[in-house]
Order: sequence, then structure tokens, then C-alpha cells
Amino acid sequence: MAQFQLNILGCGSAIPTARHNPSSQILDIRDNLFMIDCGEGAQLSMRKMRLKYTRLNHIFISHLHGDHCFGLIGLLSSMALQEKTGSVTIHIFEDGAELFDQQLKFFCRDVPFDIKFNVIKPSREVIFESHAITVETIPMSHRVPCVGFLFKEKPKLRHLKGDMVKFYNVPIKDLHGIKEGNDFITADGVVVPNARLTTDADPVMSYAYCSDTTFNPQIAEMIKGTNTIYHEATYSNEFAHLARPRGHSTAAEAARIAQLAEAKQLILGHFSKRYRDESPLLNEAKEIFPNTILANDGMRIDLL
Amino acid sequence: MAQFQLNILGCGSAIPTARHNPSSQILDIRDNLFMIDCGEGAQLSMRKMRLKYTRLNHIFISHLHGDHCFGLIGLLSSMALQEKTGSVTIHIFEDGAELFDQQLKFFCRDVPFDIKFNVIKPSREVIFESHAITVETIPMSHRVPCVGFLFKEKPKLRHLKGDMVKFYNVPIKDLHGIKEGNDFITADGVVVPNARLTTDADPVMSYAYCSDTTFNPQIAEMIKGTNTIYHEATYSNEFAHLARPRGHSTAAEAARIAQLAEAKQLILGHFSKRYRDESPLLNEAKEIFPNTILANDGMRIDLL
Repeated sequence: MAQFQLNILGCGSAIPTARHNPSSQILDIRDNLFMIDCGEGAQLSMRKMRLKYTRLNHIFISHLHGDHCFGLIGLLSSMALQEKTGSVTIHIFEDGAELFDQQLKFFCRDVPFDIKFNVIKPSREVIFESHAITVETIPMSHRVPCVGFLFKEKPKLRHLKGDMVKFYNVPIKDLHGIKEGNDFITADGVVVPNARLTTDADPVMSYAYCSDTTFNPQIAEMIKGTNTIYHEATYSNEFAHLARPRGHSTAAEAARIAQLAEAKQLILGHFSKRYRDESPLLNEAKEIFPNTILANDGMRIDLL
Repeated sequence: MAQFQLNILGCGSAIPTARHNPSSQILDIRDNLFMIDCGEGAQLSMRKMRLKYTRLNHIFISHLHGDHCFGLIGLLSSMALQEKTGSVTIHIFEDGAELFDQQLKFFCRDVPFDIKFNVIKPSREVIFESHAITVETIPMSHRVPCVGFLFKEKPKLRHLKGDMVKFYNVPIKDLHGIKEGNDFITADGVVVPNARLTTDADPVMSYAYCSDTTFNPQIAEMIKGTNTIYHEATYSNEFAHLARPRGHSTAAEAARIAQLAEAKQLILGHFSKRYRDESPLLNEAKEIFPNTILANDGMRIDLL
């Protein structure tokens, strides 16, 4: 079972190519699948990567450009035909909720599962929370309202030192509080500091999806300390003059965001169709942020 | 330059698989591309098969099930971004014209080419005619209004026998009529039969796309004498009991249509996702109609 695995279904930009499908990815958090964007062909890539519809309950759409959402109706339609049960929540801007609701009414009359639209806004807000994670919208700087998504595991409990717990004869009722970081007070009123009873909790995993956007250091502030960042890198330096007017970033700008955010790893994606080989983008980013990799369709990455 | 080449972009059925995209194909008639159905991923397959948007001016949608039209908005959107010029006519049922027009207004505000909707009906009618071909709708028997498309080259001119034309001293003004089959009358009033002056015209090419439909011998009547028939063959005999209630055909039924229509060649497609290998379908069809082949994604066939 994957703990926190990123599956790239597509990492191309507006016009799909023979090498890259449009944007879509699935974050697999202990077998719960979270889809981020759903460009055309996402359902086909899901099948090729053997990711199961039955485990997909949340779809997050960053903005309403076709290369980020044209695969939605086909995916939902196939899920309906496959008799998925339970529910799917689509986190999407209001116009998109209306548009896709209308398409669903036309094409998928008998949907055996519950489709909910959660209307999101281009602001910073926790839009989903479970016992294990939170998902927050991060405003991007694009030509239309657009958000990134920050996935964060909730803080985990500290590990008890078995021998110490025994030594101080800690009652069971106090154990949860100690795992949360409380000190222990013995029957004699002696304070045993938490550090004597526990070791550090496992690190929490965090992932930020930043696409589409021009370079904006405020984004780095909002995702500061995130382990892994996926940032669009539509162009290399050579075409930097195209990036800003089109609402996109260069690979170097993506690297600068990762550096400012003090991330551990950067994944570049949303490549312009002009590249048959993205190594110039990788090289330019690595000069600024060495731990950078290129996304690729079909790639699976175990996240930190 | 292809004379009459069929390009299979997808030949799966409702649910796409890792092997087959949903229905879409392109008929290349001397470099003019005619798309028939446009399931999700059609534009991706076009790119992989290096079929150019610039040469595509007509899209024919057989019916409004998603696996036959979900790729339309993505295709048109990419054509707009690629700055295609001229026009594209979408031949589609009325509900589809409304729905896709609405999507276009939302997603493709600046379309540099002219998009026309030609509303079709579930009846037999010539819906397109050029100097070289006609396209006719053929009513199918499906769960929703659905048509097939019959592409026919127009009759060609007979070939002049140069020596005979010279021998009878035929004036230039009479040559076209003779190519059309007229006899020639000499200045002395002698009738020279056409057969003495010409040889047969090249055969005309014809292609019928029949998907989706239950077995219906009336279809064979309507496409009688067509050279090549593409007929849906969703199931093998083993699942024949599913075919009729779902509005589909078996491979044997497809073969029976080809036989009744006195076709030269049958191409089977629209395969159920249950088949990892369609050879049982091929074998069952060949028992009835030997010159049968299986469609496959990415296949190109020079038609008779």
C-alpha cells in the first residue's frame, strides 16, 4: 500500500502532444485516490496505470481551461457505467459546477453514486479535511481564476517509549495525551517531561500542486515548508518573454519558488508542446534548485 | 497521397480500455479528412497518427452517447489554439448542436475558424455533397436516435480510347459527353457506340460506417453494394443475449449484414471491454463473411 504516492496521468499544457496528455494527476494516500485536474484522456491513463475508480472520491479542478477539465465528463460517465458506488465530490469553481452538472444531466441519467459539487473560490481556504489530511486552495496568478492545492497530513502522534511508560507506571487513560505531547504528572506530583516518555512523531507529508501560474513569490510564502512541490514550467529561459503574458512560468521560476518555499523536492510539469525533450528545462531549474525532477506521463513517485 | 484511406483512432465501446479508445475514425479522401465520431482522446490519436487539423473540415457524430462525442470539445479547442483557419462543419443531432455550441461559447471564446452545425435527423438523407463524394445518413437501430454514414464517390468519367477518338475525328466539344457515356454521331450521321470510343471508368469507392446498432437487415438494403462496411461487433455469440437489449450487434450479425449487402470487405469494431483478444469475434464473423478484419487503434486501411 502506497503511503503517499503521486501518479502523473498527464503533464502537457494546452495542446496535447504524442508525448504528453493534458494535466491530470492522482495522489494516492494509503489507497484513497485524490485526482488533481482532469484533462482529456485522464480516465484512459487511469486504466493504463491501474488506478481504480472505486477508490476515487475527490476530484480537484484548479481552473476552467479545457486542458485541466475536459476529461471530467468522460471519467464520471465511465464510473457510472462501471457502477461505482458511494460518492464523488468535485471541488471546482462555480461556473464549472454549473456546466458539468448540465452535461451530467444530459449524458449520465443513471448515476449509481452521489456526485457533489463543492464550489471553491480563488482564495486561501481549507476545502477538505479528513482524519488524516487537509487540502487547502492556494491562489495562483493566471489569466482566469485559478488555484493550486496544498495537501498536508495532519500532525501525527509521538511514539511512546515502552520502557519509560512502564517505569513511571503511566495509566492507560493518560497515554493518548502523552502521545499528543503532554507531560506526565505522577501520583506524587512529579512532572515527567514528555521528551522522557516519547520519541518524535513520524514526519508529516505535504505536497503542493501549483499550475497554472506566473511566477509569484507569495505562492512560495503560502506553501512554505512543503516537502514536494509540483510547479508548472511551461517554458525554458529562451521563451521567458512568452511566460508572463500567457500566465505561465519558466523552469527557473518554478525552481525559485521551490527555493523560496524551502521545499525538499520539485517536480516540473505543464510543458509547452514545443519541447520534444525537456532536459533544458530540467537543467535550468537544477541550477537554482538541485533536487528537481521532470514529470512524465505514467510516472509514479513516492513522496517524502 | 491516399486515395481513400481509413484511419482508426479508436474502436472500443462505452468504457475505454488500455487497448482501445472510444469510437473515432478519419476517412482520408485525397487529403481531405472526414472524421466519423469523436470519442474522448480522438485529438490525441490524431496527433499520434500525424493527421493534420488543417485538413479536417467535416465531423460526423452518429449519436449522442459519450463514447462517440466526448472528444469533440477538446479537438475543437486545440484546433482553435493551433489557429486553424477556414471552417469546420459538425453534422450532429439537434440536442448535440445545442450542447456543444454552449460548451464552445464557454471554453473557446476566440475561434479563428468558422464552426457550423449541420443538424441531422435519424432518417436516410444526403447530408453532404462535394464534387467528388456524397455522404448519406443511414438510420441505425439503437437505444437513442443514431445514424450510420455512407460515403460514396460520385460516378467517374469513362476513359477515352485515344486512337479511336483520332480515327473518328471526334471534335473536342463532344469529348466530355463521350466520357459521360454518350455515343458519337459522325458528320455523315453514323452512330459510333460509346463502347468503341471508351473503356470503363475507374470503380467508385464506397464506405459505410454502421455503429451503434442491433442487427437490422434493412441497413443491409440501404447500403447494398457498398465496397467496405465498418459494422459494430460489440459481442461474440457467447454474449448474444446482451446484444439486443443493449442496442448492439454480435460479430456474426455484423457479418450477416456484410453478406446481405454484398460488400467486398467487412471491418469489425466497437468491441466490448470484456475482450482482451478479439479473435473469437473475427472467427465467428469469418464463418459467415470470409473477408473480415478486426479494427484496431492506430490502424490505416486503404479502402477498395
